[in-house]
Amino acid sequence: MDHPRFASFSIGPRKGYGLIAADGVIDLSARFAGRFPTLKEVVEADAFGELLSAAAGQKPDHALDEITYEIPIPAPEKIVCVGVNFPDRNAEYKDGQAAPDNPSLFIRFPRSFTGHDRPLIRPPESPQLDYEGEIVIVIGKGGRRIAEADALSHIAALSLCNEGTIRDWVRHAKFNVTQGKNFNRSGSIGPWLVPYADESQLADIRLETRVNGDVRQSDRTGRMIFSFRKIIAYISTFTTLVPGDVIVTGTPTGAGARFDPPIWLKPGDVVEVEAEGIGTLRNTIADEV
Amino acid sequence: MDHPRFASFSIGPRKGYGLIAADGVIDLSARFAGRFPTLKEVVEADAFGELLSAAAGQKPDHALDEITYEIPIPAPEKIVCVGVNFPDRNAEYKDGQAAPDNPSLFIRFPRSFTGHDRPLIRPPESPQLDYEGEIVIVIGKGGRRIAEADALSHIAALSLCNEGTIRDWVRHAKFNVTQGKNFNRSGSIGPWLVPYADESQLADIRLETRVNGDVRQSDRTGRMIFSFRKIIAYISTFTTLVPGDVIVTGTPTGAGARFDPPIWLKPGDVVEVEAEGIGTLRNTIADEV
Repeated sequence: MDHPRFASFSIGPRKGYGLIAADGVIDLSARFAGRFPTLKEVVEADAFGELLSAAAGQKPDHALDEITYEIPIPAPEKIVCVGVNFPDRNAEYKDGQAAPDNPSLFIRFPRSFTGHDRPLIRPPESPQLDYEGEIVIVIGKGGRRIAEADALSHIAALSLCNEGTIRDWVRHAKFNVTQGKNFNRSGSIGPWLVPYADESQLADIRLETRVNGDVRQSDRTGRMIFSFRKIIAYISTFTTLVPGDVIVTGTPTGAGARFDPPIWLKPGDVVEVEAEGIGTLRNTIADEV
Repeated sequence: MDHPRFASFSIGPRKGYGLIAADGVIDLSARFAGRFPTLKEVVEADAFGELLSAAAGQKPDHALDEITYEIPIPAPEKIVCVGVNFPDRNAEYKDGQAAPDNPSLFIRFPRSFTGHDRPLIRPPESPQLDYEGEIVIVIGKGGRRIAEADALSHIAALSLCNEGTIRDWVRHAKFNVTQGKNFNRSGSIGPWLVPYADESQLADIRLETRVNGDVRQSDRTGRMIFSFRKIIAYISTFTTLVPGDVIVTGTPTGAGARFDPPIWLKPGDVVEVEAEGIGTLRNTIADEV
């Protein structure tokens, strides 16, 4: 069955959000912006159902080619990313270490991402722009020390991420990957939010990344080292999760860095991240101008 | 000479900011909140001078014991922290590596900090709460790829940080220190912002951390591995700095983890972080309740 898809977009200087229909966008920010300035407030109010009712029977306000996709939650309090989270990817590090007990976590700023159908930016500082396809969960109900048993009930929506990385900059310093993960618009989130209703939407779905049509990453969420439940419970141990928080849940084996020699993204390449029931996030690569 | 000191505070449910005078607080949010909701907008508008003029000759509105100190910039877009940044602290790692070429960077969320004169919280998950005294710079003029030669002109203000850390949680996973650096209210920023006017305020000032009056960390900023200029230039290479961004610039040798056996902070301990010309940030330790 088709899940509804809520996107954030801009049309010139105006920003909005709406429901993606087959033939266009039903502009819901035009109707709800007073109560819900962005999709973050929609998530906070648990109002996807209300928006869906308001959209029923409406004609699209904008054609799909009129909008520019923005990242779905424009200014989340937090974007927390999970490192190594698939068995073969842990093995790729070839350091002889068993799978770790806890997820590696790092933070990205919203400005390190762009929206669907917009270019990922290769900066002049490095040719080593790489892709990482990942599933995104957006927190609906906040909390601290959330039990694994309750964790999925804290999810409001799903999305996708190309967690674009400047490889040599993740090892620029003695510790931490911050700089290689935070070049402006080096990654993407989108195309939209799919409201979360049921564990079957996440339990064992295929996640695939293609570069110019070639499959480079392909795995199933059932094989994740750290489950969605574990990730939510673990992060909420140290910090309070709040509505709109974005968690990027880790990538399968097959990033360009792991080829011999490595294959970096170059201008004109097209990267697609696809997951069953969520959609396909597509970005071309462009040099910074 | 004495520098002016601008603090963010709360009085019950009301949040505000003002100028700290000898005998109280001149409430400037009462006069300027329409134009500048928080000190972030004051920094953005480069309006410390205007606030200072408005405060001239005014009597305090609140006694110092009436206010609760909040972190000076309540919701910065970014809080970027520099890891190992003093020569002896690099040597403390005893891994035989020379000083690194680039600063290690990690991110903390605002909710991992509390204000001056409020308890740092030791969570039930670990007894290994440790202190790290650091100097904070707040960005005034934003920018990308800021040249080292221009970097200091992008600073709006200075402050202090106790970059409180849960030691065992920084090594919980294969990479990255995120979780050990982000327990709610495990660190502090404050007491206030001192507007930045002149390089002499930073060039070679003493930074000292005391626990129950014993000096544990003491060094001078002239010995930093990565200068303030380098830090600003480097971070702005990958991300756009914006007004109100907070950079925590690294701690000297002498954290509790480096003693043999380690000395962790315990409830009732008093930690003071002091730097010449900025002030003294003081926090007690309390168990989470």
